[in-house]
Amino acid sequence: MFPKNAWYVACTPNEIDDKPLGRTICGERIVFYRGPEGQVAAVEDFCPHRGAPLSLGKVVEGQLVCGYHGLTMGCDGKPVAMPGQRVRGFPAIQTFPVLERYGFIWIWTGDRTLADPAKIHHLDWAESPEWAYGGGLYHVNCDYRLMIDNLMDLTHETYVHASSIGQKEIDEAPPKTKTEGGTVITSRFMENVMPPPFWQLALRGNHLADDVPVDRWQICRFTPPSHVMIDVGVAHAGKGGYDAEPRFKVSSVVVDFITPETDTSIWYFWGMARNFNPKDKALTASIREGQGKIFSEDLQMLESQQRNLLAHPERSLLNLNIDAGGVQSRRVLDRIIAHERASTPQGIAATQA
Amino acid sequence: MFPKNAWYVACTPNEIDDKPLGRTICGERIVFYRGPEGQVAAVEDFCPHRGAPLSLGKVVEGQLVCGYHGLTMGCDGKPVAMPGQRVRGFPAIQTFPVLERYGFIWIWTGDRTLADPAKIHHLDWAESPEWAYGGGLYHVNCDYRLMIDNLMDLTHETYVHASSIGQKEIDEAPPKTKTEGGTVITSRFMENVMPPPFWQLALRGNHLADDVPVDRWQICRFTPPSHVMIDVGVAHAGKGGYDAEPRFKVSSVVVDFITPETDTSIWYFWGMARNFNPKDKALTASIREGQGKIFSEDLQMLESQQRNLLAHPERSLLNLNIDAGGVQSRRVLDRIIAHERASTPQGIAATQA
Amino acid sequence: MFPKNAWYVACTPNEIDDKPLGRTICGERIVFYRGPEGQVAAVEDFCPHRGAPLSLGKVVEGQLVCGYHGLTMGCDGKPVAMPGQRVRGFPAIQTFPVLERYGFIWIWTGDRTLADPAKIHHLDWAESPEWAYGGGLYHVNCDYRLMIDNLMDLTHETYVHASSIGQKEIDEAPPKTKTEGGTVITSRFMENVMPPPFWQLALRGNHLADDVPVDRWQICRFTPPSHVMIDVGVAHAGKGGYDAEPRFKVSSVVVDFITPETDTSIWYFWGMARNFNPKDKALTASIREGQGKIFSEDLQMLESQQRNLLAHPERSLLNLNIDAGGVQSRRVLDRIIAHERASTPQGIAATQA
Repeated sequence: MFPKNAWYVACTPNEIDDKPLGRTICGERIVFYRGPEGQVAAVEDFCPHRGAPLSLGKVVEGQLVCGYHGLTMGCDGKPVAMPGQRVRGFPAIQTFPVLERYGFIWIWTGDRTLADPAKIHHLDWAESPEWAYGGGLYHVNCDYRLMIDNLMDLTHETYVHASSIGQKEIDEAPPKTKTEGGTVITSRFMENVMPPPFWQLALRGNHLADDVPVDRWQICRFTPPSHVMIDVGVAHAGKGGYDAEPRFKVSSVVVDFITPETDTSIWYFWGMARNFNPKDKALTASIREGQGKIFSEDLQMLESQQRNLLAHPERSLLNLNIDAGGVQSRRVLDRIIAHERASTPQGIAATQA
Repeated sequence: MFPKNAWYVACTPNEIDDKPLGRTICGERIVFYRGPEGQVAAVEDFCPHRGAPLSLGKVVEGQLVCGYHGLTMGCDGKPVAMPGQRVRGFPAIQTFPVLERYGFIWIWTGDRTLADPAKIHHLDWAESPEWAYGGGLYHVNCDYRLMIDNLMDLTHETYVHASSIGQKEIDEAPPKTKTEGGTVITSRFMENVMPPPFWQLALRGNHLADDVPVDRWQICRFTPPSHVMIDVGVAHAGKGGYDAEPRFKVSSVVVDFITPETDTSIWYFWGMARNFNPKDKALTASIREGQGKIFSEDLQMLESQQRNLLAHPERSLLNLNIDAGGVQSRRVLDRIIAHERASTPQGIAATQA
Repeated sequence: MFPKNAWYVACTPNEIDDKPLGRTICGERIVFYRGPEGQVAAVEDFCPHRGAPLSLGKVVEGQLVCGYHGLTMGCDGKPVAMPGQRVRGFPAIQTFPVLERYGFIWIWTGDRTLADPAKIHHLDWAESPEWAYGGGLYHVNCDYRLMIDNLMDLTHETYVHASSIGQKEIDEAPPKTKTEGGTVITSRFMENVMPPPFWQLALRGNHLADDVPVDRWQICRFTPPSHVMIDVGVAHAGKGGYDAEPRFKVSSVVVDFITPETDTSIWYFWGMARNFNPKDKALTASIREGQGKIFSEDLQMLESQQRNLLAHPERSLLNLNIDAGGVQSRRVLDRIIAHERASTPQGIAATQA
């Protein structure tokens, strides 16, 4: 149960550099590749000739050639050519609105008439030379909403990530949560605490003392369908915290794009954008490695939680103040999904190309 | 289909030494750990906060702390504390009667009002310094009754364990089977036979000649729900067999606790208790290794048999005299299960803590 | 959906040299072994005693001894002996008509009264000293008809086997297809083309120049239930092609026996028979290795195609001229299956031994 009329991150550009990529997004088997002018294309991963997956084929001059019998497909989903055949009457396959922006490939699997590029989530940092970004991709067997819950309640850092970003004071600082339109914001501020290992590393990376008390903040922003951007940082204590001058603080944006594969599995694009030392590629790599390790700690928990919930569908869970971020995010999603269903009575959001 | 109102072996103490253990017993997902005074505790492996498995958490001063957001659970299944929360109104989770005895952890997944510790299967040898025990655990994908059949008809030793404990004379000695109350006993005596390799090893381990004829015995005792204890041994021929003086014989008890995980999978705790050279730890280890190898030979057979039976649910099997042990054991079980169902009309044996 | 009243290749003789072989053919779990005079036998892989698979047992003097409790079965499916038992009243298990011919073991899982050995597909080359054969076996998760389609449309060589037997000219030469009785023949002739790597190897293997233009042919013959024999070869250009004298050409027969395991999986026996240098065992081995590598390239495609088709059962596929071989083969199969169903109204073709 996820919105279909939305832009989701489908893959990163490097994943379609050398060959087409077959990936299931929102239940649709799709092949991604680069078309004639290098633009990204996305069509059903199903050759109209004999049903072979087109992702096993290759891209020749921007056209997808089926790897089984050579039917060549245009980016509009229409057969273009096939040795010894007239393809005029061949059926087309579905295409999907797809765009490359901010270093990601974005896909729209719902009603294509609504696929306005302006609706792609805006990422300031992705367009600025003052910022650097590094990230990765995990496949996780859980409902996408369990990952939203995870990211909208960072209390779990104390337990799941005890050795890196967790610290007792997170638990003790109650978060504040509010919904503004479709955006849910949950924030937590901790004053005069010692920085945990990950933040010590970041302080040193920004040439700041790492053994003094800091003010720490976490501001999680959920935007539909399933993006969670988290402002995180520390400033030397008493210098203004979140609002401190740059020379006293180190901060970044934790970036999370959670793309449903099926009802109980996701493609999880995680990363970190930072605006200190943006040209330091070694720092980008070391942050990426550290974050990858930390974020992998969540996977076993989320997959086990999913199995537990599937085994006990009748159980209701607790919604505490710390869960308000997830709870309000689900409310936003429920509204969107209800609205989507009301506008497409047949329940079929996607239309044939 | 297994009795719920019974004590089953859930695990061995070493399995909960360092961290909580999540294990499904009789279809229930349970977490086992040590409580405040070191006593064993067993509660549902389901955190009432967000459904995470508590077995991924840790034990702090005898209380289970959820590894996701830190809800601390008491051994009574009631939430005790959570940073920043008042847990008074939080729902409890189910607890299970559990006990440590004879070197095993025992669990009762049925009606807790009936969970009398006195009903735990008594093990003489486990309390005597004249006996030593060694054993292990296998997970097997078969109905627990197939394992009972296996152990109550040792004819299979000739075929499955030909190189260790099998010998032609087993086949030739018809077993005698009787039911006494809920206990089924099937015995087989072989006179004046040469000892097979495993018993040659045991004879040497007890400083007895291993190249002379022996009288051999196998007395299998099934007790509900699924324990099979087998008196096995050999005595130099003509010295009285089972009743021979200790200086002429070597004997032991094959110990089998068969705990249903699901309808078609089990936790199989196997071992051997012996009353010769009980202090010889190297002997314990070598017997354990030998037995582990021998008992692993059954697994492929039992799992394949299970698959065959699932593929042919309509087939009826033969019940020969050699099968009487399994057949009578199943009758005992059927009675117990029928009785259990009659007393709990809703089919729900377990009650909430 | 496959014919049951037909001879399928079940295994090769070497597979039953040392021990019985358990294999599912047309949905039936069967054990194959050699009987008292060395003749092949096939019975249900299900011991009537306790349902253990007989394939885990052993063959003693041509009789199958169950590896669990020693019930000895005759090749007629009737219990013969069991230590300490009278087996007269024991139920029999089903036997299957089975024959060894042409270097293969053939099985009939349908109505045994129709199992005429004369119906086994005749293989000239298998009886002639002028021919050599090498081959192998793959298990593939696809409907057997997808493999027939694959072999009856060699256009795919250009795409799937581009580096070995594929070449552009295959696409450009339209095939001709005809049905003669139950046999479907689809042929393609390419004149004056350069030989691709595999054929260069074969030319050298027959001491012919490999860097000159050739005439190439592919004549695929489908015969029910699922055998595809393909005459393939090249002759130096202008020497008569398929009809050229032996000193100008190199040719062979691609041999494909496709045996359904289930509705969506097959045992695929592939190989090549050749009539040049038949005594050269090193050549046989190197052709076998090359063919094994080439044919393994189809597996990912076929299994992915199968998954795509299962995910889209509503889609209809294109039937082009190049697909005529597969299409006409399916028509032959549909007729046979319809006829089989009409003659066995209960839908049960196989009869008990």
